[in-house]
Formats: sequence, structure tokens, C-alpha cells
Amino acid sequence: MSDKFNYVLLNARLATMDENSEGYGLVEGSVVVRDGRIAWIGSDLPADYADLPRRDAGGRLVTPSFIDCHTHIVFGGDRAMEFEMRLNGASYEEVARAGGGIVSTVIATRTASVDELVQLALPRLDALLAEGVSVVEVKSGYGLDRETELNMLRAARQLQDLRPVLIKTTFLGAHATPAEYAGQDDAYIDDVCIPALHAAHAGGLVDSVDGFCEGIAFQPTQIERVFKVAQELGLPVKLHAEQLSHLGGTQLAARYNALSVDHVEYATEEDARAMSASGSVAVILPGAFYTIRETQAPPIDHFRAHGVPMALATDCNPGSSPLTSLLLAMNMACTLFRMTPLEALTGVTRNAATALGLADRGQLREGYIADLAIWDVQTPAELSYRIGFNPLHERLNGDTA
Amino acid sequence: MSDKFNYVLLNARLATMDENSEGYGLVEGSVVVRDGRIAWIGSDLPADYADLPRRDAGGRLVTPSFIDCHTHIVFGGDRAMEFEMRLNGASYEEVARAGGGIVSTVIATRTASVDELVQLALPRLDALLAEGVSVVEVKSGYGLDRETELNMLRAARQLQDLRPVLIKTTFLGAHATPAEYAGQDDAYIDDVCIPALHAAHAGGLVDSVDGFCEGIAFQPTQIERVFKVAQELGLPVKLHAEQLSHLGGTQLAARYNALSVDHVEYATEEDARAMSASGSVAVILPGAFYTIRETQAPPIDHFRAHGVPMALATDCNPGSSPLTSLLLAMNMACTLFRMTPLEALTGVTRNAATALGLADRGQLREGYIADLAIWDVQTPAELSYRIGFNPLHERLNGDTA
Ligand SMILES: [Zn+2]
Ligand SMILES: [Zn+2]
Repeated sequence: MSDKFNYVLLNARLATMDENSEGYGLVEGSVVVRDGRIAWIGSDLPADYADLPRRDAGGRLVTPSFIDCHTHIVFGGDRAMEFEMRLNGASYEEVARAGGGIVSTVIATRTASVDELVQLALPRLDALLAEGVSVVEVKSGYGLDRETELNMLRAARQLQDLRPVLIKTTFLGAHATPAEYAGQDDAYIDDVCIPALHAAHAGGLVDSVDGFCEGIAFQPTQIERVFKVAQELGLPVKLHAEQLSHLGGTQLAARYNALSVDHVEYATEEDARAMSASGSVAVILPGAFYTIRETQAPPIDHFRAHGVPMALATDCNPGSSPLTSLLLAMNMACTLFRMTPLEALTGVTRNAATALGLADRGQLREGYIADLAIWDVQTPAELSYRIGFNPLHERLNGDTA
Repeated sequence: MSDKFNYVLLNARLATMDENSEGYGLVEGSVVVRDGRIAWIGSDLPADYADLPRRDAGGRLVTPSFIDCHTHIVFGGDRAMEFEMRLNGASYEEVARAGGGIVSTVIATRTASVDELVQLALPRLDALLAEGVSVVEVKSGYGLDRETELNMLRAARQLQDLRPVLIKTTFLGAHATPAEYAGQDDAYIDDVCIPALHAAHAGGLVDSVDGFCEGIAFQPTQIERVFKVAQELGLPVKLHAEQLSHLGGTQLAARYNALSVDHVEYATEEDARAMSASGSVAVILPGAFYTIRETQAPPIDHFRAHGVPMALATDCNPGSSPLTSLLLAMNMACTLFRMTPLEALTGVTRNAATALGLADRGQLREGYIADLAIWDVQTPAELSYRIGFNPLHERLNGDTA
């Protein structure tokens, strides 16, 4: 019996985030871990567990470890050059002529090998893990050809072998139309995106299917063709929707019982109702809102009123959100969107698990995977309050090396 | 001859930030360090230095290490409770009744010993140092009585003995009027603030003198009484001015040849002209702007037009800017104020040195202290571009343990 997955954690201030408790579900007590799962949690440790190895939390706050449910951490190149060009006054056209924009990321990603993609993603992944993350969703979508889309997903899967993390992969072939299909969005969907999805699924590389429904990307009818394939393959869907305008992606996603609808700055109360009915999580991405200097905040009040669960994620990507801190996403959600610290913590634990279809993560409950984060703070609110400070004391994982 | 302060750093991509060079002052080459100072810098290493120990930068970017020229990192307590209360809908009055606001920080600071203040500040200092900072300015201003103001400065001085950092102390007795002097601002200035400044100076605890000139704090005439004492004592001044409104603090500070005027969101073109004439640095504090959701950006264009040097700092404090990342301040300055990555890097190196009156820091030049930061990045712009990511490879200090 390995001590790693079998122990009692004593003297903990537990924010269980248990959906059956009020607020943070605070408990002063212990957690018993057996075979990497929570076997018992509470204040008065039963004598049965006396023989297990003991760890002492020293009175620290313990939460479910964090889940980043929306990232694009696998990609080639970076976009610092265009960041600087634009701040130096260059127009979008000048940036494009200099090779900037998503095109530059697609070129750099296509020219990288799987191993290079892994090496480039590792520092980003390590930054997330250092802040108590134990599950990371990773999307394809910078290949935009069959082989590179598959390579991105292969790289994502390899990350899980190299670090103590659970990686959930998402196929995002419908992210943008590549240059070689300019003006032929439908042909790209039919000739590249859908065949690549079939191939990725056949290779066991896909956990869910996503798309970018926006004026600058794909229309709902195009996204729906991809969703139909996902449905045939038995894969859950999610969608980048209503980020820059209202195009109806949320309603489409809800009809397909999407795990989540992401960004949603321009979503309406009707959209919130539809998400509530379909059980879709609203994934709030303050890093992108901040970076592109958006002014329309997502309709948090509608989500609250209609009981739509809200998750938070980094959206880590080289263009609109080069963010690798989920703690900072929490602070931004509170500061920019007036979400509460409780909503922020729920958004990176319980609701982030729901957004990934994970039924046994994101809460400290009996039977759940024992993914624990131990923090050098007194109260859960401190996790959202500070900016650019990492109070992680230790991260304990229930099922990874 | 210690290897620590005597070596050649080879194979470096040097952003010298030399005021006599263009832009970043980029040089591909080496730095020779003797007795902790830069003895030579350039591309073709002279044979004279062949006997010095060698370090290899591996082609990485090397900048002057960073300088955080405006912080309040010494304080007791935290303000996470009121952060949460307000997001949960509490009014300012309810927060005040629950013991929130600056009053709570003053009470917690007064009840802490010097050693406790040091222990509380260390994690904040360590977060700064981990991102390549080697000089930190620390203000008093949460004591608001003679002994606690002195204790804050003593704690700041002790930090320098415990970490490899140069601490510059600033007396900020004119930060707020304490509860026991409510409605008697003038009496507080005369009976407490000025005598405390004399005592702090006599104890060798003060490097410069600051004030908070604002409707909620002190009027220019009150600040001027403190500045006169500073002038008599031969201490340079700086000022928190025009943060929430335009009260004329900048003109006052310029008349006293202030090292810097800080915040300055509401400064005018006339103010920029006055700062240019007095050689005062504009210290831009995006963390506070972001946290209090200010909408008036500082007049960057006026500062540019009139050649006012701009520095950037964290303003780390428990109320309006619980920020401990200078890298994030750089990204915020670019994102929120459209400063360029070059202005951001200049703001945390050369101009931050000027804001502290340091004539031999903040640039990589012969004769300057060899405070170097080595980064795992290709270009200086990457330091501003990423959000919540720390690419520091190594920090080398020229004169501290
Ligand atoms: Zn995304
Ligand atoms: Zn300040």
C-alpha cells in the first residue's frame, strides 16, 4: 500500500466545495485517502484509520486542487512581436504583412514536431501546476490540417505522461479557416475538419469537440455539421460563443447538450435560460476580456438568476490571452466582473469539473479522487484577493504519478 | 577575489537600457564584473579579462535587474475579508462597521512587533525577488503614530539584512489621519507626523519623504509643511498625487524638485510640463488603477510629449493594490495604458532608478552596479507580453549578500 495514495491528512481547514453544503463547505478536520480516493472526511477521525500514514496540514486551508477547463497551451511560436508592433502603433494590416496574427501561430505549429510542441507547452503547464492545478483541458486548433491537428492532440496526451496532471483533450478543428481555404469555410469543414475529427477519434485522441462560432470564424450552421459528427461518435461538445457579438452559438450548443459554452460576453437572458435547461456550464474567460480590452462583461446576473453554473479558466493562448495563472483569472473575475470569491473558487473546482464532464473531481467528498491543494492562507477569499502571488504550500494528487 | 562579484558573463543578449543608446540598447556579447560593478560590456571581449571566472548566459536575454520604486509591503493583517464583503454586496458603511478599511491595517500594524512586520513582509518581498527585482522601495504610513512609523521603517531596513536586496525607505507619515485625530488633520501633521519624521531621520531610517495629497487624505498646504521639514533635513521628496482627483499636488511636488510624482491619473499637460522642468519621474501604478476600477488613465501622451520619464511599480498594499508582480505591472501598463514594451522595461529599470535617486543602477553600463537579471526569453517584449508567467532564469546581484 503506497503512502502516496493512502494517508490521513490531519489538522486541515477544508473548503470542501461540496455541492450539498453551503458556501465553501468549510470543515475543520481530516481527510482519509485510500487508493487515491477520499474514503472519509470530517472533524472526528474514526479509530479505523489509526494505522494509516499521517500528514499534517498545519491548520492550512485545503481545497480541491484546481481545474483549468479551457486552454490552448499546445502551440508553436509566440506573438510577442505583434504585441509590441501594435503598441508601437502598427495597424492590423502592417502586423499581418509582417506575418502576425493567428496565421503565424498556425505556421509555427505546423513546422513543429510533436516533441517540440510538448517541450514548448511544458513551461506553460508547469506554471499552471505550480499554482495547484491538477487537471488541464487542452484544445487543438492551430494545425487546421489533419496531421497537425492530430499532432497537437498527441502532444497534449504526452503532457500527461510527463507531469502529474490529468489532461482532457478537445478537438477544435473549427477554430479558423486556414489560408489555403480562404473564402471556402464550408469546404474546410467538410474536407479537413470533419475527416480530422474522425481520424482523431479513431486514434483515441479526443475527449470532446469544440468550435469557434463568431463572425471572424464559423457560422452556427457550419458548427452544427461538426457537432453532428461529434454526436455520432458519442463525444460531448462545447463551444466558443458570443465572445465578440451575438451569433446564436449558445442556443445551438444548448440543443446539443454542450458541456459548456465559453466566453459568452454577449449572451442574453434567453441564452442563460437555454444553458440552464441543457445543464451547460458558462466558462468565463477574464484573461481574454482583459487582453482584448473588451467592454461588454458576461451576463453574470442572468447566469446567477437562472442557476447556470459558472466556471473560470485561463484560455491560455498566444493571441488573446497569454495567461498562465488561474489565481489571476480568479482575481480578474472578481475585479472585472464582480464575481464573488466563492463563485471564483467554485469556478476553478466544482464547476470546472462539470465543464469537463468529470463526475469525481472538483469537490472534497467521499468517493472522489483525492486531488488536494494545501494553501498558506487563512481564508478562501485570499485566493482571489491577491494579485500575482502564489500561496500554494503543496499539491497532492489522487491518481497521477 | 570572490567569484560572486568578479566574473565574465558570456554569450548574453544584453538589453543594456543605456540612456545613451537607442531603444533597448541591445548588445550581443559579454559583461565583465569586477568588485560587483560592470567593468566592461560589449561584443568583443578584450584579452585582459581572460583570467576571470566565466559564466555562460546561454544566449539568454539579460537586463538590468528590476527595481520596484513604490511599495507598501510592510504592514499587518490583510484585507481579504473586506474584498469578499464588498463583492458580496456590503456597503462601505457595513465594511467600516465590520472593522474594514485602512483602519484595520493601522490597527494590525500597530499591534505587530518589528519582527512580526518583517515576517509578514518577507513572502511579499520574496515574490518580487523571484521575478528579478533587486531594489525595493518601502514606505511607512500604516502606523500613523510615532513609534509604529519608526517600527515600519526598522522592519524595512531589516529586510535588507535577510535577503539579497537593496531597500530604500520612504517616510509616509502623511498617508492618512488616524482615528484619534479624526477631523484634526493639521494637528496630526504638527503633533505626530513631523516629530516622527525628525525622529526617523535622527535614527537613520529615512531615505526620502512622501505624502498622500488627495481629498480623502491631505491638502497641498499640509503636505508642504512636511516637505519643508524634508528639505531642512536634506531628504528628497515624492508624492502620491492626482490619483482620484486634481488637487495640485504635482505642481507642489515639482516646486520641491520631487524625485517622483506617483499615480497621476488626473494630472494635466501643465503638470507634465512642471514635472519635465523639475526632472520628476511619473510613477505609473496600474495595479491600483485596475483594483479600484478607475477609468481615467494617466496622461501618457503628455508625459511622452514633454519628456517626463515614466517608471512602473507594484504599489503593493493591502487595500488598493495587493499586487506582488512587477512583470504583471508591465503587462497592465501595456494593456491598460498602451505603454510600449520598451517603456515598460525602461519603467522598471532605468526610470525606476531615477525615481529613487539611484545614479548607478537600472542600466548595464561601465561603472554601474552589476545587478543582472537573466531571462528565458528571446526578446524584451516577451517580458510584458505574457500574463502570470515568470521566465526568470537567474538573478545576479552586484552588492548584496
Ligand atoms: Zn479559447
Ligand atoms: Zn502608494
